[in-house]
Amino acid sequence: MSDDSPSIEQLRQQIDALDSQMVEILAKRAEVTRQIGIYKSKVGLPVYVPSREAELLATRRQQGEQRGVSPDLVEDILRRVMRESYQTQNEQYVCTNPAVKNIVVIGGAGALGKVFVQMFRRSGYHVSILEKNDWAKAPDMLANAALVIVSVPIAITETIINQLQHLPHDCILADITSIKQKPYQAMMDRHQGPVVGLHPMFGPDVSSLVKQVVVVCHGKQPDAYQWLLEQMKIWGASLYETTAQEHDQAMAFIQVMRHFSSFVYGNHLRQENPDLQQLIALSSPIYRLELAMVGRLFAQDPSLYADIIFNNRDSIELLKRFRDRFDDALTLIESKDKAEFIKQFFMTGSWFGDYAKQCLKDSKKLLLKADDDRTFD
Amino acid sequence: MSDDSPSIEQLRQQIDALDSQMVEILAKRAEVTRQIGIYKSKVGLPVYVPSREAELLATRRQQGEQRGVSPDLVEDILRRVMRESYQTQNEQYVCTNPAVKNIVVIGGAGALGKVFVQMFRRSGYHVSILEKNDWAKAPDMLANAALVIVSVPIAITETIINQLQHLPHDCILADITSIKQKPYQAMMDRHQGPVVGLHPMFGPDVSSLVKQVVVVCHGKQPDAYQWLLEQMKIWGASLYETTAQEHDQAMAFIQVMRHFSSFVYGNHLRQENPDLQQLIALSSPIYRLELAMVGRLFAQDPSLYADIIFNNRDSIELLKRFRDRFDDALTLIESKDKAEFIKQFFMTGSWFGDYAKQCLKDSKKLLLKADDDRTFD
Repeated sequence: MSDDSPSIEQLRQQIDALDSQMVEILAKRAEVTRQIGIYKSKVGLPVYVPSREAELLATRRQQGEQRGVSPDLVEDILRRVMRESYQTQNEQYVCTNPAVKNIVVIGGAGALGKVFVQMFRRSGYHVSILEKNDWAKAPDMLANAALVIVSVPIAITETIINQLQHLPHDCILADITSIKQKPYQAMMDRHQGPVVGLHPMFGPDVSSLVKQVVVVCHGKQPDAYQWLLEQMKIWGASLYETTAQEHDQAMAFIQVMRHFSSFVYGNHLRQENPDLQQLIALSSPIYRLELAMVGRLFAQDPSLYADIIFNNRDSIELLKRFRDRFDDALTLIESKDKAEFIKQFFMTGSWFGDYAKQCLKDSKKLLLKADDDRTFD
Repeated sequence: MSDDSPSIEQLRQQIDALDSQMVEILAKRAEVTRQIGIYKSKVGLPVYVPSREAELLATRRQQGEQRGVSPDLVEDILRRVMRESYQTQNEQYVCTNPAVKNIVVIGGAGALGKVFVQMFRRSGYHVSILEKNDWAKAPDMLANAALVIVSVPIAITETIINQLQHLPHDCILADITSIKQKPYQAMMDRHQGPVVGLHPMFGPDVSSLVKQVVVVCHGKQPDAYQWLLEQMKIWGASLYETTAQEHDQAMAFIQVMRHFSSFVYGNHLRQENPDLQQLIALSSPIYRLELAMVGRLFAQDPSLYADIIFNNRDSIELLKRFRDRFDDALTLIESKDKAEFIKQFFMTGSWFGDYAKQCLKDSKKLLLKADDDRTFD
């Protein structure tokens, strides 16, 4: 190598200097987004403005292209940075109904309850938390509540709703349970005033409500709880309206089927008892991800999953039909009928339509991101 | 708001200016990593140096902390940037065996074959591709081959190996099939010279071989193919040694079980025929990801999956035991035995051990990344 070409140490110093500048830019950017957050909370603008985000990304992708930097790299980085700014930009949100005196969250000390308590408080509402030991205080707390949100385990949701007394006639009654028909019916029966069923389609570990979906099952007097829906939109949530029945049918597919399959798969592994470390080492990114989807279940609270699975009685028939289809497919393999396997594969591919291609594209992107975090020694 | 506070337009212009600087830094960084790549390829250093990566991340995390920027944000961005640099930094790799005259990749025009052809060529080797229509040229091509890699569909791997003639006695024979016992045995029987079985644990869409696993099943004369293993390490791959039998047993769990379950789940959805758009809309990030894992299967070539599932005969018994465990779990639900469900849940949790917690942590991180890509209007 010629004498005037930089050494590897010099090149690495250049990298370090550039990375250091990058961190400085992130610090400056956080300060500006903080100011934007203050502005938005004063004016009442939502945190997430899709058109602004799309325009920002398009401009930078174009710049990347001109400067020989992969536009996808630019977009990935900016999206990650924006996630952070959505999360930190708003210490305060605009309050869509300053007339509200008090909000009571029953079970507000639970994981998901806490998220809502925090969001309401950041939006300037007074929030009281009612936990099982405070039940004696319930009459006082509920007496001046403008909104009561039930955020308790599925198994006791109906019982708690049925115990509610002294709710003001104009108080909104809402729940955030992951099943909807039974709590909905209980609320409709119990309360004369406004009622709405909600299912936040995310766990307590979300970094913000931006781009998260909340299912809304309209109950009674929607005009009275419109401010609540607007408040969630201010937080960045996307609302999806459906009926309690449609919701529960969809959940039989989504929650029950997946949790149940993961439960069986985990039990299967335990009983077969393969060398887990070897399985992990031998797994490609996609299998590692699938294994992680099973493993993660067992790091969580079994009661939650038992409640979800045992409380959706319709799902037993669905699971039985799944079992029959499993048997059908086994027969294909035993009889070595590869042609029929391929035929069914194509039929199901057609059923998924363009979504299958989208899944492949999205999962490829995500697997690359999963790989970013790998470390080897 | 006071007159001297900046308007939202001014704040957004500040963001745009900072983002523009970030793209400029990325462009400069790419130029430096390109130079590092040239240096490494001359000196023969591997692309991925774990200690350098760890140190770089630690220093920037610390800077982030000092400047009030989330260290996790800094690390996520740097890891994404490093992925890009691993991918682009090396147009050339050092060649670990310049004495090699010719490498033949049978099926080298296929998706995964192409990856290896490109990597060998970038490392200065002469590579010939043998496709089914070129079989007449095979004797000439193979006569001076130092390495022959079989990269053809599983169903014809053994046939192709058995057709190999005129291999020089010192030529290395290797395959990259996703099952190992049968091709391994066929190669051992067919060839007197060096033999090694390989299974690259990644798909053709990897951005580079950095941090990707390649399974190595040693055959004959390991000293003779040591340069090949070293070459893959130069590319950044992590080698995992095991026997063909252990590999195939693990794959019954990893590949067959998962592909088969996804196949059945897809068929189940098609036959139940729920509103797919509604399912997607009602899915939380984790369910969307799980659905995507099923959907992606059906956007791919059914023959590949048929081969994997139908060629691992041992797996039928494994699948039958899975079906029995599915039935056992169904019985639990029908008999409303929540206590037994929770007991089994804990047993399986113990079996997974700390890995379950790790899965939960990793998947949370990944789900946040998946959310970054969401767009709503």
